[in-house]
Amino acid sequence: MLGAIEAGGTKFVCAVGDEFGNITDVIQIPTTIPDETMTEVINFFKKYSLDAMGIGSFGPIDVNMESPTYGYITSTPKTAWKNYPLVQAIKDAFSVPVGFNTDVNAAALAEATLGAAKGLDSCLYITIGTGIGAGAIVHGKLLQGLSHPEMGHILVPRHPNDKYEGGCPYHRDCLEGLAAGPGIEERWGDKGVNLVEREEVWDLEGYYIAQALIQYILILSPKRIILGGGVMNQKQVFSYIYKYLDELMNQYVNFPDLSSYIVSPVLGNRAGITGSLLLAYQALQDESRS
Amino acid sequence: MLGAIEAGGTKFVCAVGDEFGNITDVIQIPTTIPDETMTEVINFFKKYSLDAMGIGSFGPIDVNMESPTYGYITSTPKTAWKNYPLVQAIKDAFSVPVGFNTDVNAAALAEATLGAAKGLDSCLYITIGTGIGAGAIVHGKLLQGLSHPEMGHILVPRHPNDKYEGGCPYHRDCLEGLAAGPGIEERWGDKGVNLVEREEVWDLEGYYIAQALIQYILILSPKRIILGGGVMNQKQVFSYIYKYLDELMNQYVNFPDLSSYIVSPVLGNRAGITGSLLLAYQALQDESRS
Repeated sequence: MLGAIEAGGTKFVCAVGDEFGNITDVIQIPTTIPDETMTEVINFFKKYSLDAMGIGSFGPIDVNMESPTYGYITSTPKTAWKNYPLVQAIKDAFSVPVGFNTDVNAAALAEATLGAAKGLDSCLYITIGTGIGAGAIVHGKLLQGLSHPEMGHILVPRHPNDKYEGGCPYHRDCLEGLAAGPGIEERWGDKGVNLVEREEVWDLEGYYIAQALIQYILILSPKRIILGGGVMNQKQVFSYIYKYLDELMNQYVNFPDLSSYIVSPVLGNRAGITGSLLLAYQALQDESRS
Repeated sequence: MLGAIEAGGTKFVCAVGDEFGNITDVIQIPTTIPDETMTEVINFFKKYSLDAMGIGSFGPIDVNMESPTYGYITSTPKTAWKNYPLVQAIKDAFSVPVGFNTDVNAAALAEATLGAAKGLDSCLYITIGTGIGAGAIVHGKLLQGLSHPEMGHILVPRHPNDKYEGGCPYHRDCLEGLAAGPGIEERWGDKGVNLVEREEVWDLEGYYIAQALIQYILILSPKRIILGGGVMNQKQVFSYIYKYLDELMNQYVNFPDLSSYIVSPVLGNRAGITGSLLLAYQALQDESRS
């Protein structure tokens, strides 16, 4: 049996299940302070005999196995969790292999293995909600180098008519600063769900997402792109993305048909916890190989 | 013995050697029309008993092994070479495994295996000259998905004081349009080598390269970045790149010490042909495994 934690800024989702994404028990625990939250997390899993555990966590996190702070949540604005050794806390409670990655990488792994990019050895999963994050699969594995990617913070050329200054505390008008949910709300004075009828909102949103996709495509050349997260529930954005992407690329790179190349997730809000199960499965396999 | 071709727009470099980069014979053949050039290429290699051949080619090229036009040079402005089946021409002449990739990917492979990123399973190699190209190593292998990357054409926010419109025929003011050699010459009215003393030239160049590196780092998180090509022979650019990179990232992602993270190539102008030898070696290994 595999254990999985989707560690988020407002709640921890904990589940047990298998590597096919079947979940037999699941619980949600509020994210308060580590002592409280982790006690509840550990109590949930104590009922089960686990073979491995997988964690998809909010971040930034340290995923470099050679680092002394591997398995830590690092520079989060949630001060109680800053420099918290999440992997070690789980290892101390359960002596099993622990897989660890970002929440968005877990979701990317799930969509690549069991969802919208099943069968492909290359894809890009992007979530656009209160923040923007992305995970990539390259040669069948989660892209990782020096650290995990931080694709939501890339720079995008501004739309000439957009006067909104951008809301990213680090980079002001990076992609996340311009196109995440809070940016939509600040620019237009209302939440996206209340702006469905206003075409200019989704035209501009599509413009910025297309600018970002151009960069991702030119750099990563993914075989499929999956666009999820709360903002992408506004399906009308897709047509603007397709329009601007065609214009911007100007036929320099040949795309497949855009409606099959840039798609919605299949697993929806189960992607993170399913991916965490897959991280557990990978940790188990890595352990048995070593 | 391994054969290698570095197929460029002005010349084909052909060599024989081994997978350690030792070259025992080498020749340069002008790039005219395929009939002429390829006849000379084939005559050169006929003297040797080859086990495999590697080609690092100008492009764009088709590197998708499942494509009916795999091994072709595709949409090049050099009309005589457009849709030319380069791999097939070599296979027809020599019945050996043929490795095929872009010239910049070949150089990236060489720097990763024998050069400035030796021993790392992740790096990014960028060449800035008459054009801008880049190749990435991820999980120890050349990054490839739908196709090879086209990283030189990413969009970069313009410097507010830069009035030059950009020289890319596809995207006008993409990175290549703003920061490649021809852009420097058009903007400042002279070749870079004649502008060494003008600080503002290299300040602006460093500004644009830093903008691009931010995108590459946030998306790929490479363990080392190697900056080569004619423009990067102006070593004074490095200090501007470091300055702007620190400013732009605003401590969001922790870098290693920049002078060891962003470095010059080790193999110099031998990178392309050395990488082509390595492509030959990979093709030989793939053949023996299958």
